[in-house]
Amino acid sequence: MEPCTTMPKEMTKGASQRRELLKTALIDAAEEIICRDGLAALKARDLAAAAGCALGAIYNVFEDLDAIVFAVNMRTLALVDRDLSAAISARPTAASDDGSADDPDAGRLIRLATAYLAFAATNGPRWRALFEHRLAEGRTVPPWYVAELARLFRLVEEPLRAMTPGLDADELPKLARTVFSAVHGVVSLGLEQQLGSIPHRRLRRQTAAIVAAIARGLREAPP
Amino acid sequence: MEPCTTMPKEMTKGASQRRELLKTALIDAAEEIICRDGLAALKARDLAAAAGCALGAIYNVFEDLDAIVFAVNMRTLALVDRDLSAAISARPTAASDDGSADDPDAGRLIRLATAYLAFAATNGPRWRALFEHRLAEGRTVPPWYVAELARLFRLVEEPLRAMTPGLDADELPKLARTVFSAVHGVVSLGLEQQLGSIPHRRLRRQTAAIVAAIARGLREAPP
Repeated sequence: MEPCTTMPKEMTKGASQRRELLKTALIDAAEEIICRDGLAALKARDLAAAAGCALGAIYNVFEDLDAIVFAVNMRTLALVDRDLSAAISARPTAASDDGSADDPDAGRLIRLATAYLAFAATNGPRWRALFEHRLAEGRTVPPWYVAELARLFRLVEEPLRAMTPGLDADELPKLARTVFSAVHGVVSLGLEQQLGSIPHRRLRRQTAAIVAAIARGLREAPP
Repeated sequence: MEPCTTMPKEMTKGASQRRELLKTALIDAAEEIICRDGLAALKARDLAAAAGCALGAIYNVFEDLDAIVFAVNMRTLALVDRDLSAAISARPTAASDDGSADDPDAGRLIRLATAYLAFAATNGPRWRALFEHRLAEGRTVPPWYVAELARLFRLVEEPLRAMTPGLDADELPKLARTVFSAVHGVVSLGLEQQLGSIPHRRLRRQTAAIVAAIARGLREAPP
């Protein structure tokens, strides 16, 4: 419900502040539920109780639960962004296993991949919610979410651009998404132990090894 | 319940035949539900109704629903095996985009990957059930299922062995699982359109391209 435009200005401001406070309270509560019990545990009734509002009040400030999940996932993307940005700008040490000695771009890609693994390993339910979230039929991903994803993928595009100088500019974002998907597959099946149990150190090594192979292969012959 | 050993032989045989018939009926019914509505739709009550038995009868022939899901997933693995085996033994044509002209082993890996993509694309819910199935706490994967998985991965190991002659024999199964995981990531995020919509032909090209890069990278410097 939009505030009525004939209201005195102070009342309107008060109402819009209350709206923002309720929105934040709902996102906070949803984030807590998702991080503790996973996305499947998110129910409107519990969410209203946790945020201290009536069930119907949720739908005064959000279109539906999907919109709240996107807001939580947006916070998660910001955390991924923070960790990945730190990893890519970190100065590689002599002892690091990122192969950066012979190819600094490959080293950056490997550091991004192992930082992604570390994020997923320490933020299980929050990370899983990014991929478990399925939209109701007819709903589309909000543009601000698409924009944040694109910003994140630019971190992957940068080292790839340096490695594939002949590649068309509009192919680069697609390549970045494919390389990310490959890393995500290794991280995800590995952490969920879906092909048998695998110790974390070994999963880290395998993640680095597959990225090193991809990087060498792309240097050899860009797609 | 095991058939009573003091029963006359014919009765015992009849009881054990009825057990087998009921088992098959339950697996058939579960398979139909999973292929039509997905794993999440599988409930004991509907399953009993579909198989025409009492709810309790399920637990006379199976330990729990997990055991039935494993039996359905086993059938799925057999279908994957059939498609992947056909793909690897197919004679590559001049027009095929598997890069087999310059590296036959890479070509075989690429044909395996695109056959996997084709299987996943045409068997959505059945394929998803392989990965959505989470075991109840304390339950382990049955050894016959592990054995079938290992058999499937040998299809991936073969071209990899030829490409990485210096690799330790016990590293090969791990490398095969890592390469499969990477392909699975591309197939899975692509088919679920989780990083934006992507036409099938393009997803097929990207799947082939990432495997080609991995293959070149592994040839260059085995892990």
